[in-house]
Amino acid sequence: MDNKELLILVTNDDGITAPGIAALVEAMKPLGQVLVVAPDSPQSGMGHAITINRPLRLRKVSIFGEIEAYECSGTPADCVKLAVDKVLHRKPDLCVSGINHGSNSSINILYSGTMSAAVEAAIEGIPAIGFSNCTYSYEADFSVWVSWARLIAQQVLEHKLLPQTLLNVNFPLEKYGPVKGIKICRQAMAKWNEDFDERTDPRGIKYYWLTGIFENHDSGNDTDEYALANGYISVVPVKFDLTAHHSIEYLHEKWQLDRKV
Amino acid sequence: MDNKELLILVTNDDGITAPGIAALVEAMKPLGQVLVVAPDSPQSGMGHAITINRPLRLRKVSIFGEIEAYECSGTPADCVKLAVDKVLHRKPDLCVSGINHGSNSSINILYSGTMSAAVEAAIEGIPAIGFSNCTYSYEADFSVWVSWARLIAQQVLEHKLLPQTLLNVNFPLEKYGPVKGIKICRQAMAKWNEDFDERTDPRGIKYYWLTGIFENHDSGNDTDEYALANGYISVVPVKFDLTAHHSIEYLHEKWQLDRKV
Repeated sequence: MDNKELLILVTNDDGITAPGIAALVEAMKPLGQVLVVAPDSPQSGMGHAITINRPLRLRKVSIFGEIEAYECSGTPADCVKLAVDKVLHRKPDLCVSGINHGSNSSINILYSGTMSAAVEAAIEGIPAIGFSNCTYSYEADFSVWVSWARLIAQQVLEHKLLPQTLLNVNFPLEKYGPVKGIKICRQAMAKWNEDFDERTDPRGIKYYWLTGIFENHDSGNDTDEYALANGYISVVPVKFDLTAHHSIEYLHEKWQLDRKV
Repeated sequence: MDNKELLILVTNDDGITAPGIAALVEAMKPLGQVLVVAPDSPQSGMGHAITINRPLRLRKVSIFGEIEAYECSGTPADCVKLAVDKVLHRKPDLCVSGINHGSNSSINILYSGTMSAAVEAAIEGIPAIGFSNCTYSYEADFSVWVSWARLIAQQVLEHKLLPQTLLNVNFPLEKYGPVKGIKICRQAMAKWNEDFDERTDPRGIKYYWLTGIFENHDSGNDTDEYALANGYISVVPVKFDLTAHHSIEYLHEKWQLDRKV
């Protein structure tokens, strides 16, 4: 392995045969040496799951021409861990995940396997970006995002990211027209309003499909949802320190534990 | 269901038959009406996974005496969603998750099913606490934590939490001696140094077990790791807005996208 050029790890959560990862490989090729380690089956909704109760498999595949690629039996987070420890034997210069089939904007980041792979890389100290396409259409054209993904990756390589941060990038729906540009945003405060689809199986026992409606409760014009709804690509810098720092003082004051314990 | 008294939802990620959840049910009983919805099998390491590719099952069980309880085929996050939407038909006054078998301090929060259940409740606007016991011993005695879990839940019910925050509570190892008290902390900056255990199956094919060593890179005395290592219970206020707000200005300045796009 030539250490003189940039080494770029590509992964995803839709599985190694998904069209989104092929587009991302195309996007990264001109930027350095690309290596793919991605799940062997779809992992959508896996959040930051890791595999601890069964062993992992890693198989070399040749579906990206000359690009070295491996499919892994684990989650997206597993793929990054295994890639760094058992395939690359060194930290890559960049890790990109996606392009996901479906939005990971706003609260969706929490459920996202795509983003968990990028977060895992960031924990390892690797500059990392998760890319998602807001459309769920099976005919989604990922090729239109190749040059945008490359531009954003170039920005990260050129300007670096602040320590312990990564990027969550979402591409807007086509219905909003030609892309107007890129907006740096914050995560919108939104939630899924769950509505389980209750059914009865042939043996008369109930079962439930998770469905829901996405509700944006955030009227700010500096959010990812606002950017996407206005035809911009949203870029949210993300951290993995989940401490609600502003709440520490509140708890100290209210609980007065020194007196109670 | 009597709406006049407090309604407390109990869940976990070790599964409904784990000893930790029985201790948590005991802890909550004096505080209100307790209802349990928990996974029917262990879900450790599931992060914030949700189940979207298969339907969910929900079965009533009677393993907690008079306490109404259901086992669910899904993840901890699924359990909370299903409990609120299909069992309770209203928001509970509190959701507690655990007591987990193993630490969810520091970076472990990202991989934690226990915490993802609590986060899911917090997204729904429910006051939420995740409890974890740092020991991995199979003989772990959870009964010692019943009164502490109750005290912390009482604090939350009495003083409330700031909007869009929840608590990550970890109980220290016995080797540090009698508990010294409770410390409000921030999440320590630490990571797992992965070390996959590579083996060969009877057919000559390699497989990998995820293992690793926890490395605390944070020398602060205001972290959860510091509190736990000094015999205190750690309480970290947690948020689910993952935006690295301090990085937005940096990206605006460095990228200068207005000129580039």
